[in-house]
Amino acid sequence: MPDPTLDPADWGALRDAAHDLLDRSLDRLQSARDGRVWTPLPDGMKAGLKAGLPAEGMQHFELAERLASLLPYGVGNTHPRFFGWVHGAGNPGGVLAEIVAAAMNANLGGRDHGAIYVEKQVLDWCRAMMGFPADSGGLIVSGTSMATIIALKAARDARIGPESRTKGAGGVRLTGYASAQAHSCVARAFDMLGLGSDALRIVPCLEDFTMDLRALRGMIAEDTRSGLTPFALIGTAGSVNLGAIDDLSGLADIAANKGLWFHVDGAFGATAILSDRVRPRLKGMERADSLAFDFHKWLHVNYDAGCVLIRDRDAHLRAFSERPDYLAPSARGLAAGNPWPVDFGPELSRGFRALKIWAHLLEHGTDKLGAAITRNVEQAAWLGAKIDDTPGLELLAPATLNIVCFRYTADGTADPDALNEAIVIALQESGTAAPSTTRINGKLAIRVNLTNHRTTRPDLDLLLSEVLRLGGELGTQ
Amino acid sequence: MPDPTLDPADWGALRDAAHDLLDRSLDRLQSARDGRVWTPLPDGMKAGLKAGLPAEGMQHFELAERLASLLPYGVGNTHPRFFGWVHGAGNPGGVLAEIVAAAMNANLGGRDHGAIYVEKQVLDWCRAMMGFPADSGGLIVSGTSMATIIALKAARDARIGPESRTKGAGGVRLTGYASAQAHSCVARAFDMLGLGSDALRIVPCLEDFTMDLRALRGMIAEDTRSGLTPFALIGTAGSVNLGAIDDLSGLADIAANKGLWFHVDGAFGATAILSDRVRPRLKGMERADSLAFDFHKWLHVNYDAGCVLIRDRDAHLRAFSERPDYLAPSARGLAAGNPWPVDFGPELSRGFRALKIWAHLLEHGTDKLGAAITRNVEQAAWLGAKIDDTPGLELLAPATLNIVCFRYTADGTADPDALNEAIVIALQESGTAAPSTTRINGKLAIRVNLTNHRTTRPDLDLLLSEVLRLGGELGTQ
Repeated sequence: MPDPTLDPADWGALRDAAHDLLDRSLDRLQSARDGRVWTPLPDGMKAGLKAGLPAEGMQHFELAERLASLLPYGVGNTHPRFFGWVHGAGNPGGVLAEIVAAAMNANLGGRDHGAIYVEKQVLDWCRAMMGFPADSGGLIVSGTSMATIIALKAARDARIGPESRTKGAGGVRLTGYASAQAHSCVARAFDMLGLGSDALRIVPCLEDFTMDLRALRGMIAEDTRSGLTPFALIGTAGSVNLGAIDDLSGLADIAANKGLWFHVDGAFGATAILSDRVRPRLKGMERADSLAFDFHKWLHVNYDAGCVLIRDRDAHLRAFSERPDYLAPSARGLAAGNPWPVDFGPELSRGFRALKIWAHLLEHGTDKLGAAITRNVEQAAWLGAKIDDTPGLELLAPATLNIVCFRYTADGTADPDALNEAIVIALQESGTAAPSTTRINGKLAIRVNLTNHRTTRPDLDLLLSEVLRLGGELGTQ
Repeated sequence: MPDPTLDPADWGALRDAAHDLLDRSLDRLQSARDGRVWTPLPDGMKAGLKAGLPAEGMQHFELAERLASLLPYGVGNTHPRFFGWVHGAGNPGGVLAEIVAAAMNANLGGRDHGAIYVEKQVLDWCRAMMGFPADSGGLIVSGTSMATIIALKAARDARIGPESRTKGAGGVRLTGYASAQAHSCVARAFDMLGLGSDALRIVPCLEDFTMDLRALRGMIAEDTRSGLTPFALIGTAGSVNLGAIDDLSGLADIAANKGLWFHVDGAFGATAILSDRVRPRLKGMERADSLAFDFHKWLHVNYDAGCVLIRDRDAHLRAFSERPDYLAPSARGLAAGNPWPVDFGPELSRGFRALKIWAHLLEHGTDKLGAAITRNVEQAAWLGAKIDDTPGLELLAPATLNIVCFRYTADGTADPDALNEAIVIALQESGTAAPSTTRINGKLAIRVNLTNHRTTRPDLDLLLSEVLRLGGELGTQ
């Protein structure tokens, strides 16, 4: 029988492998601007990743080789011409925090230890950043999907009362409201929480893709007349299709007037509060009952890292707190520090993701993070104007924040949807750039998302010239 | 305005800081057996963690100092005399994987890239390890809390049908069944999913703390007569109080007979399938419809890392898959690789936690991981026998797996609950050992959990002698 400890027999060999791997990882990040954007995993490596469950271990140098071999095959989001979906570009300094987090191996479900105080500091910073009260509830989570579930659970339970947790909604039929541009995670939260996604009413948008408040008022009135119970209003601060920001002050007024829980989905948009240019457009967000946002998008903390803030800390606690004997709190010792994070969310096992957020804010400071956001907004405005000026390209919506949706439509394009999808795939497969696709008013769009601190003007020039070249090439095939 | 890129101006300085921090982190792990178990964060550091949101950044060497200063103040679970709750002891080699994961900065919500193939490999290994079919569904998650929510959502939706997602449960009143020793995350999942925690029936236990199957049959029959709809049966493979393992084959039979979804909570116990000594006791687990378990407990992968397996992959997909335009899949390019992980769970943003699991299994192999588990089981048996033999100590339940619950009860102890709580706090605060507390049949217990690959026999000797010494000292105060 082998020695059961998992500590290395040869610490020197582990150290050598770790230092070597650290250099290779930093080499990769230092050359993030070079080479291809996205490189598919080679077939040989795919085959290698279908091995049987290993009974025997391997040496650290060999493990380091295996790990290093994966470095070129990420999503591509560390490259300056990655424009897909809403991905952050990452932070080389984040490696520091992850080394320490791995060594500490802390579980942040609860108890009284150093990591807990770091998360508390991060949450205080989140409150300060977002203009939330110092005594509001909060939790660091994987991202806005989870943050939205937590926020809407607190809203559900606050509306139904204590029986919500033990007996469900009973006969009460709750309804919530979000715009047609709201992220799919909102409807998914309704599904998860047993309300059913149909209970989320989809409010039409105005021409600027923000929620139509007049339509919203009508829908609330109609649902109320029908005996339903409106309980939540979800505003979007930065829609995923176009970066639209709802009239958050207007929504806050309606929520206050109708007694609704006002939740803001600020997945990437909320952190633009650090940009002088965007901040005024987020007015009203600070009045939300709950706010969900990510650090791994426009703030570039390495994946994954998000946050939920809930104004009424007691409502937050009431939705999650409940501890059995084996988790009983104590006034002293390791089980002290009540309430624990587990009292604010569904997860009892929680890694130390707060550390990379804390380190990131210390490393860069909010001024620099805000400036990177401002530059992306300026780049999007420039790109939108350029597209508008370019024959053969059609801008599908004004670029009001950081997302530009357009398409190639030179004369004689038979099937513009298929052609533009082919252009995007060709861009991705060639390694030149990686935009994604979406549909705007039914039209397939090339979607360029700028949450990338490495992108420069020449990257955008190259993107446009390649779209024109590929459009000509693929359009005549 | 500062240069908006977040890349370091001086890569050399970042490298120096990272290598220095790596050595200090490995130093800490190499001396994990020395010194105190748990060290509370000093007041001065707590005060330092109440700083204002930083506008300006800092140099990497300074950031590294801040990070390194946290290293001594973890939960204590890397120490051989940490016996609290169910924490893994961590793995020094895990630092390798975290360096690469940070550098890749991949989002595993979906798309076609290297990290996705690593997660697929890990899931294949999970299926093989647990005896699940090769075509079952699965997802890497933060831990069993989240895994349980995902599994029971699939169960809920499978029973109600497609309207479950859009309209909720309607008039159907679902009930589930778990033992009185089941983990609190099961009731919490019922609450999260809108079923209400009362819909989870608590089945009494036999004297060995496993579910009473006769009582279970009676409760199912009674609920059915009352017009309720039994839908899920939850077995426990390793209860958190005592490590009890339900009669999983018996539960599988009942579930098959009654048409119930059979879920197994194997948070830490399931991975004991790698131990020759425990494996036979887990028979029946391979028949589960879903299984939740953690890698960060008895397998010692660094926090956080868990898994859910769902036998019926289509049922798994039906509970979560649904994608809007901006996430449309593609047959080629970066958006290929359908289905994506987001089709199997609620999170769209997902870090690369699969990497540390993959690396861990490669580094150690299953033989060694199983041997470490076997040793803990042997240690628990030895400790239980020793306590039984020691005057002044009372074993509160047989140590059948890895958890030993006992208390100090020398003659004349006036308030044994208060005294034993005081003993545990004194052990924690002295830094000597860190057990936790729970209640067994109403009695406050010193709970010694052995999921620790660093623990040796002398650690257990020291624990007992300190309990006796403190009991004598504190009992006469």
